[in-house]
Amino acid sequence: MAEHNVGGGRRGITAAAVPDLVAKAREGDARSVGRLVSLVEDESPLLREVMRALAPYAGNARIVGLTGSPGVGKSTSTNALVGALRKRGQRVAVLAVDPSSPFSGGALLGDRIRMSDHLLDSGVFIRSMAARGHLGGLAWTTPQALRVLDASGFDVIVVETVGVGQSEVEIAGLADSTIVLLAPGMGDGIQAAKAGILEIGDLYVVNKADRDGADKVRRDLRSMLGLAERPEGAWKPPVLKTTAQTGEGVDEVADALDEHHAWLVESGDLQRRRVRRARDEIEAIALTSLRKRWGSVGSGDRLDELAAAVVSGDTDPYAAADELLPEER
Amino acid sequence: MAEHNVGGGRRGITAAAVPDLVAKAREGDARSVGRLVSLVEDESPLLREVMRALAPYAGNARIVGLTGSPGVGKSTSTNALVGALRKRGQRVAVLAVDPSSPFSGGALLGDRIRMSDHLLDSGVFIRSMAARGHLGGLAWTTPQALRVLDASGFDVIVVETVGVGQSEVEIAGLADSTIVLLAPGMGDGIQAAKAGILEIGDLYVVNKADRDGADKVRRDLRSMLGLAERPEGAWKPPVLKTTAQTGEGVDEVADALDEHHAWLVESGDLQRRRVRRARDEIEAIALTSLRKRWGSVGSGDRLDELAAAVVSGDTDPYAAADELLPEER
Repeated sequence: MAEHNVGGGRRGITAAAVPDLVAKAREGDARSVGRLVSLVEDESPLLREVMRALAPYAGNARIVGLTGSPGVGKSTSTNALVGALRKRGQRVAVLAVDPSSPFSGGALLGDRIRMSDHLLDSGVFIRSMAARGHLGGLAWTTPQALRVLDASGFDVIVVETVGVGQSEVEIAGLADSTIVLLAPGMGDGIQAAKAGILEIGDLYVVNKADRDGADKVRRDLRSMLGLAERPEGAWKPPVLKTTAQTGEGVDEVADALDEHHAWLVESGDLQRRRVRRARDEIEAIALTSLRKRWGSVGSGDRLDELAAAVVSGDTDPYAAADELLPEER
Repeated sequence: MAEHNVGGGRRGITAAAVPDLVAKAREGDARSVGRLVSLVEDESPLLREVMRALAPYAGNARIVGLTGSPGVGKSTSTNALVGALRKRGQRVAVLAVDPSSPFSGGALLGDRIRMSDHLLDSGVFIRSMAARGHLGGLAWTTPQALRVLDASGFDVIVVETVGVGQSEVEIAGLADSTIVLLAPGMGDGIQAAKAGILEIGDLYVVNKADRDGADKVRRDLRSMLGLAERPEGAWKPPVLKTTAQTGEGVDEVADALDEHHAWLVESGDLQRRRVRRARDEIEAIALTSLRKRWGSVGSGDRLDELAAAVVSGDTDPYAAADELLPEER
């Protein structure tokens, strides 16, 4: 069947090939998973088909965000965490979001080097994704990439992003559990508080624990976290220590993730977080679709016509917006 | 007439009072202008009426953005620039947007102190506005505040904002002419290039020209600007020097603004910028209105219902977004 030439690169994929691609991805075929993620990155018109096919399988993966300033050891920590999760028999996907990169998933060589321990492990899928969102934030398609990995049957998805600008706050919004990584000498507690990381972490990990100052970072962080007012029954973020390079302390991080997950389930917070995420995702799709539609409708550019009428004083922006807006349904 | 109790504070304003308020604002009544800006800040339901009433009068003001890092002398420069413009007989409004402030236009005392030269001048209107936008950017209502001031008959509107985060890029999008202010000792040219200010300025002003290093800042900036590739006929941003404290060089800034304005008119860029701005404004109003609608429709919360269906796997985010979206009209 000519339509099923999914081996022929992105161009070759047709709507008819989607169910096959999804089935293969669910069987653990990394190439098929990668192709589905590429469809997301490319904002392919086939995404509708893909998402429809994936819908029944979504909602099982645990999504772990991992963020921290440059230099705290994010890649090494991710690598070590993946190892700890694999020992527990879990299939793990890593989505590395690089807000500074204008390029997308092509960073294959880089991916392989940074995660070299897991190169030959078919239970691990690794992918870089550029952040093409506004202001250094995540691309609006990031949740859909997570949806692909989730429905493909991974037990845990680690989303790694550098903690600059908006991306660390956004990652906390996307993840079930957010790990904030720190290291001695990378900025003291006051800086941490200022950057708002005290609000986003479910787990704090002081990496490079073999270095001077690690205990002080941990102590400062604990006392700052202790000052935060929390409602009764709220999760109290633990502060752990690791030396990711040697793997020391990483099993304890995996344990803490399990504890947090159990708390999420018990408290009902998991469902709440997932509903809120789906809500954001639906809204982002709807808004993007509308903006595309407004940009060019029929033969002309509707927004430009309305804008010209506003500039000439023939109408006002609210009346113009009404022209774009539907009747309520 | 009980409806016309516009003197009774924001609460007292009714739709019927809007034409009167607009008429008074256009006659130069600062209180009425201030009330219209407050309606914008409060996202009043009366904004539709206000914008309808203002539409025929908009499009005459020149909008000047003024941005720069903390400490370069923005307030002093704005103060001096207002003085120079007043000498030319122009009515001037100043909108000071503070991205760090969670509060809004109540900063009256601060306004008066910072612009004390123009306290008693009825040809000058000064207003602070909080930036309530995402990520320290401008509030989505800022363009509407400019629209109010424009239609109220000011010849020039100076929008002053501190150049941090996204606000300086956004200000360049809103202004006809953007002044980027620098000062010696506040960071060298390399920093300037890194921060992206080389793309946003129509005019560069090195303030505190009496200090050591001013000439070097100017020279570095000129050579960096000289390296930029520009299409033929493009505007070449001049680099001026001022000592805002004494007023030295400020008339030349006003002259350069005139030259830039003449270029904008001649090149057709003014119309293009204004159409693009109106476009953004219409889109922001339409999107905000839709999000409000989606947030709560009828008895329940439509987005939440759809999100729950996505989480349970009963539907996918695209199909859910379709439920929100109108038929094309």
